[in-house]
Amino acid sequence: MDFALSPSATKLRDELLAFMDERVYPAEATYRRQMSELADPHGHPPVLEALKAEARGRGLWNLFFPGQLSNVDYAPLAEIMGRSMLGPEACNCAAPDTGNMELLALFGSDEQKARWLQPLLDAEIRSAFAMTEPDVASSDATNISCRIERVGGDYVINGRKWWISGAASRRCEVLIVMGKTDTDAAPYSQQSMILVPTHTAGVTVVRNLDVFGYTDREGHCEVTFANVRVPAGNLLGQEGAGFLMAQARLGPGRVHHCMRTIGVAERALELMCRRVQGRVAFGKALADQGVIQQWIADARIDIDQARLYTLHAAWLMDSEGNRAARTAVSGIKVAVPNMALRVIDHAIQAHGAAGVGDDFPLAWMYAHVRTLRLADGPDEVHRGVVARHELRKWVT
Amino acid sequence: MDFALSPSATKLRDELLAFMDERVYPAEATYRRQMSELADPHGHPPVLEALKAEARGRGLWNLFFPGQLSNVDYAPLAEIMGRSMLGPEACNCAAPDTGNMELLALFGSDEQKARWLQPLLDAEIRSAFAMTEPDVASSDATNISCRIERVGGDYVINGRKWWISGAASRRCEVLIVMGKTDTDAAPYSQQSMILVPTHTAGVTVVRNLDVFGYTDREGHCEVTFANVRVPAGNLLGQEGAGFLMAQARLGPGRVHHCMRTIGVAERALELMCRRVQGRVAFGKALADQGVIQQWIADARIDIDQARLYTLHAAWLMDSEGNRAARTAVSGIKVAVPNMALRVIDHAIQAHGAAGVGDDFPLAWMYAHVRTLRLADGPDEVHRGVVARHELRKWVT
Amino acid sequence: MDFALSPSATKLRDELLAFMDERVYPAEATYRRQMSELADPHGHPPVLEALKAEARGRGLWNLFFPGQLSNVDYAPLAEIMGRSMLGPEACNCAAPDTGNMELLALFGSDEQKARWLQPLLDAEIRSAFAMTEPDVASSDATNISCRIERVGGDYVINGRKWWISGAASRRCEVLIVMGKTDTDAAPYSQQSMILVPTHTAGVTVVRNLDVFGYTDREGHCEVTFANVRVPAGNLLGQEGAGFLMAQARLGPGRVHHCMRTIGVAERALELMCRRVQGRVAFGKALADQGVIQQWIADARIDIDQARLYTLHAAWLMDSEGNRAARTAVSGIKVAVPNMALRVIDHAIQAHGAAGVGDDFPLAWMYAHVRTLRLADGPDEVHRGVVARHELRKWVT
Amino acid sequence: MDFALSPSATKLRDELLAFMDERVYPAEATYRRQMSELADPHGHPPVLEALKAEARGRGLWNLFFPGQLSNVDYAPLAEIMGRSMLGPEACNCAAPDTGNMELLALFGSDEQKARWLQPLLDAEIRSAFAMTEPDVASSDATNISCRIERVGGDYVINGRKWWISGAASRRCEVLIVMGKTDTDAAPYSQQSMILVPTHTAGVTVVRNLDVFGYTDREGHCEVTFANVRVPAGNLLGQEGAGFLMAQARLGPGRVHHCMRTIGVAERALELMCRRVQGRVAFGKALADQGVIQQWIADARIDIDQARLYTLHAAWLMDSEGNRAARTAVSGIKVAVPNMALRVIDHAIQAHGAAGVGDDFPLAWMYAHVRTLRLADGPDEVHRGVVARHELRKWVT
Repeated sequence: MDFALSPSATKLRDELLAFMDERVYPAEATYRRQMSELADPHGHPPVLEALKAEARGRGLWNLFFPGQLSNVDYAPLAEIMGRSMLGPEACNCAAPDTGNMELLALFGSDEQKARWLQPLLDAEIRSAFAMTEPDVASSDATNISCRIERVGGDYVINGRKWWISGAASRRCEVLIVMGKTDTDAAPYSQQSMILVPTHTAGVTVVRNLDVFGYTDREGHCEVTFANVRVPAGNLLGQEGAGFLMAQARLGPGRVHHCMRTIGVAERALELMCRRVQGRVAFGKALADQGVIQQWIADARIDIDQARLYTLHAAWLMDSEGNRAARTAVSGIKVAVPNMALRVIDHAIQAHGAAGVGDDFPLAWMYAHVRTLRLADGPDEVHRGVVARHELRKWVT
Repeated sequence: MDFALSPSATKLRDELLAFMDERVYPAEATYRRQMSELADPHGHPPVLEALKAEARGRGLWNLFFPGQLSNVDYAPLAEIMGRSMLGPEACNCAAPDTGNMELLALFGSDEQKARWLQPLLDAEIRSAFAMTEPDVASSDATNISCRIERVGGDYVINGRKWWISGAASRRCEVLIVMGKTDTDAAPYSQQSMILVPTHTAGVTVVRNLDVFGYTDREGHCEVTFANVRVPAGNLLGQEGAGFLMAQARLGPGRVHHCMRTIGVAERALELMCRRVQGRVAFGKALADQGVIQQWIADARIDIDQARLYTLHAAWLMDSEGNRAARTAVSGIKVAVPNMALRVIDHAIQAHGAAGVGDDFPLAWMYAHVRTLRLADGPDEVHRGVVARHELRKWVT
Repeated sequence: MDFALSPSATKLRDELLAFMDERVYPAEATYRRQMSELADPHGHPPVLEALKAEARGRGLWNLFFPGQLSNVDYAPLAEIMGRSMLGPEACNCAAPDTGNMELLALFGSDEQKARWLQPLLDAEIRSAFAMTEPDVASSDATNISCRIERVGGDYVINGRKWWISGAASRRCEVLIVMGKTDTDAAPYSQQSMILVPTHTAGVTVVRNLDVFGYTDREGHCEVTFANVRVPAGNLLGQEGAGFLMAQARLGPGRVHHCMRTIGVAERALELMCRRVQGRVAFGKALADQGVIQQWIADARIDIDQARLYTLHAAWLMDSEGNRAARTAVSGIKVAVPNMALRVIDHAIQAHGAAGVGDDFPLAWMYAHVRTLRLADGPDEVHRGVVARHELRKWVT
Repeated sequence: MDFALSPSATKLRDELLAFMDERVYPAEATYRRQMSELADPHGHPPVLEALKAEARGRGLWNLFFPGQLSNVDYAPLAEIMGRSMLGPEACNCAAPDTGNMELLALFGSDEQKARWLQPLLDAEIRSAFAMTEPDVASSDATNISCRIERVGGDYVINGRKWWISGAASRRCEVLIVMGKTDTDAAPYSQQSMILVPTHTAGVTVVRNLDVFGYTDREGHCEVTFANVRVPAGNLLGQEGAGFLMAQARLGPGRVHHCMRTIGVAERALELMCRRVQGRVAFGKALADQGVIQQWIADARIDIDQARLYTLHAAWLMDSEGNRAARTAVSGIKVAVPNMALRVIDHAIQAHGAAGVGDDFPLAWMYAHVRTLRLADGPDEVHRGVVARHELRKWVT
């Protein structure tokens, strides 16, 4: 057993840490200023382009991409990027594009790769993944009601999706839509995925959905598909393989999400530690008060456990395959966001009123991480996966 | 021991319930539409004026006001109003005006009452209370740095305040400002309160502060006071009495806040119960799933305990005075918001992705209630009050 | 709404407090010494008889008995008795006899009352209630497998019961046994109760069961019934009424249990407060350390809420009947033991190693209260009762 | 990063698993029977000797001993032993002897090693470590009041210790006593350790202390030292080095304790999984009830995190030394017992009444693990260590 990073991962980590210190953290204030000047919550501030160029120049680009790094080597980098809201996009490692690029790499035709994968790898366009539906509990894939029907050489899509992250971006050029092609097939063979250019007739972004009051730049949209017609060649992979591809997409994606979230928790802990060393109440620095020390200790203990747990899941994927790691991935999907919320909440409390406003990123972090207890399956569904796996070990 | 409402409180409760059902709940959609049309987060939607006229006509007006009702009779009404974000303002029972009206009633001169109390009671103007400061841990009143200095027949105010709720309202006409008049006095005799018309020269609303991304209509503002000069007659009460008046203001105010918050929790529980009876996942209504039933049961159990605890504190104030109830009030100040956050968080989880957006009021409730663990003293300070009181019982 | 005790309850409370201070607390050390000298964990120490004579002389006897006091008047007395492990028995208000006496009073024939109720009221004998079975989840009454069969003028009982509290006492003269008389009846009409003298042929106390290592004086026994024959006149109430009578028994019994448990929690809090004011670590009295203050504050807050919640349930029983109070009683059954365990656990932690031993009663309290989360239905079953009641309010 | 066990650790693990399956688990019932027959809670049942001979023959003996295995290789073995209350002693890897053997190996003179270390390695005698004192908060070593005074060629010891684990064993031949040799030295240089044969004049085992009602076989004793005289050669290490040696002893010892405790939690989870698959309530197997599935999932998630966290601390000790691992060791000292208590408590609840008795080892596990939140420094002290280390990273 060896917990040390590999030499190549160590080198990348050091380069990434330098990039964060030299460019990303200093750009945060610039970003806020530019967003404020744009007066468009879905605008694209120039500082991001400068960061992207710099990251690419430094070789810190598309590190998530299959074949680049093992999961266990990439995971610590995802954590570091996650410390800043600008980090993942600066390095072209932001969701939902990463998962979409993986899908295209694994299942895309040459034509699909040329048209969408390459521009995504070059960060010239962005993409979205349209699975969740407003009218059903769509964490159960058998409930999906969106239809993808073959009509001649085309597929015709009808349905309503929401919480389609990224669809509010001016640069979002393509949606990967999950729907049913065959409602008579076996329950988990009814779903397929199809590539729908954002500007196809019949695609309507009905509205953007705020998260706890925050309008995210790339947005989370409600989108309707009304007799949307795309060529049959836009089908991603095989008919009926949608559920399996979604699972494949979600495995590494969940590890990335978790590691970025651990970065968020580390940032919150840093903010808490800094804050409490600079404030005095009732005759004593906050840092010297026992209750706050317990928050800090619990944060460190919980973060370290969650990181090791996530790294272990990444290592399982590398060494035994995504399928063998499935239960472990459900485990981190539950453990990490809940851990991060506890840390952030304590950091908010330690900041007093400043914690719930926007002078610090804590309230935004809380809102953002809170969605992860729901996104891509609520905690309760993932706990069920873990429990059923455990129970099978001890059938009497 | 008798837990029954008094006949007069029962009558008011029934009238208020009817008003909520007939007017307030139906107005919520109208309110959202009008706010959206106003395109001004600090605008004043007409539906509120209609509700206010109606409430006044029904005799459901200023029920909080000292002398109207006992605390234990008013508390259940505050809970009912709190179920809707429109309820308290409709009945002219909204913070921070209620506390400010109490201060004016108890300590104001006749002139002050004529100029500010009467229009507040008529809901023609609104007011704000400026205590919290950005640069110090101001839950410790000895840290307050704002200065109120006597210069001839005037007082001159210099300082920076923030989280001044209500100051963004177009109707906010007066600020009650807490500052130090005598830094050489005993630690809790240095503070005074003074009435400052919002439009006095030197008063600058620097910015509004969002709460978890939400821009509240009445706002939470950062306000600077630069050589602000007001007549000496604007001093509220005596020089040096600021701390005591703040305590007096906060006693009933905390009970009101807690009861409104219990109303919020009840609304969240109602939403959760309705939602889970209409959704199916993995072959079973959410309402039939054991985990969700445990959330509902814990919500009911926690709400009922918190309500009784708050009513008991109200009864203590009525029967033994605000001072004797001080520890109990610190207790409810801790217990109630934490309880409500647990209930709301479960309701969010039960709503899936819809829970974190704005189609339901849950995320807004969460953000709003989260501030109550900080406003007017963080949990930790109030727990300290309770603990020290308890320890004194058992000195060995 | 009036939280004050009635004058008669106030008088009894003051008398009981005096009895506790003058006799019961001082007897605790005597009790431990006598038990140690008896060298029989099921022995009967003389000090108890002295306490009982004294309580009877002071009119603090059988206060639980129906018709003596309302539930809301009795509840605060049960709390006070519960502060000492000797209190309830000293006043002849100890489980399981109280519930059994209620059953006999409500459903017993004159002959049954003469033979068993009167000696129980005089504390000359004790009794047990045999419902739980080892081989099935008997919190679901339909699972009960014990059979009570009519054979001529007798009933013949066969079955195995366990956790029969009180059956190890040398004074236990009668068991109220729950079993099925008619397995063809409707699910909740199959059960009956029958009075079985402890020394009837075929009744075997197989063993005593320890609780967390503690051998309770009155014991918790496993008892087998092998062709046990008793006269038909020993049937309690009607055939098929067993389930309903069990519910009736459990209502007030749960309130008493909860109030005694609140007394336990108060005692633990007292012990914690005393301890931390007498110990210094790392240069500071434990009482001055923030973490410990938070434990004390949370204990006070949680205890006060739980007490009011239990009193309210008692008041509901008095004013609207046991049936209307059923959900509230399930609520307190969940809330109170969980609260008490949190308080006791913190008190243990504050005592250091002394907390887990027997120089203080804390570990024993923990073990004893832990059983209450299971006895007479586990938390999860009672939460289900509360949840289903809540859901019915909001059927859409 | 590589989470795989080394080949040699894998081989030992497989051999140990076989030993557990073939000998240890089957011996548990024998052990209980023999203890019951001995009718002496501090007796020594023959089955243990058979297990020890077998373990020694299989080469599963003294695996903890410095130089045998790295910490990270030994840790998984400690977990496996910890699954049975017989495992550690069977393999001569039981506390407190392991820590005492380490001390003797590191700091003992040749004579001390010959007299005590060799018989301990051969499991012919046992030992105890006397640090904790009843009258002071001895988690703060500066509070220690026991005196060790040089008088001629001897040391004379006076003091009172308690919770001296192992001192009730008939085989306990030596106590390592911590006391102050020089109260004028710097605070952490006042303490020394000395070897005191159990049967020296002046050593009195005053009493055994039960833990939550359980009388542990090896006991936890209160021991007084009244003018106990031993030769100067019995001093362990240097005068004044007691505190540092205690720290050295506790580092690996805490890792071992944590890994054994993880084994306890795994066993509790196994018991829970088996139980719920064999019980039906309200028409459904317990295993199919959502609440119980959440308990199982949380147990698996929490155990896996705690194990990785502990292994990482072990690896830090191996790769960077005990000193560098100090904060991590405080972290696991807090995290692991709290985790195990949650798991065991859920397992108890899932077992119903059977969970609090002794037909299953769950209540005993709970009591035993509960002591670990206090033994060798309460949680709060260790959280303080972690917090202060964290704060130093972010001094502003």
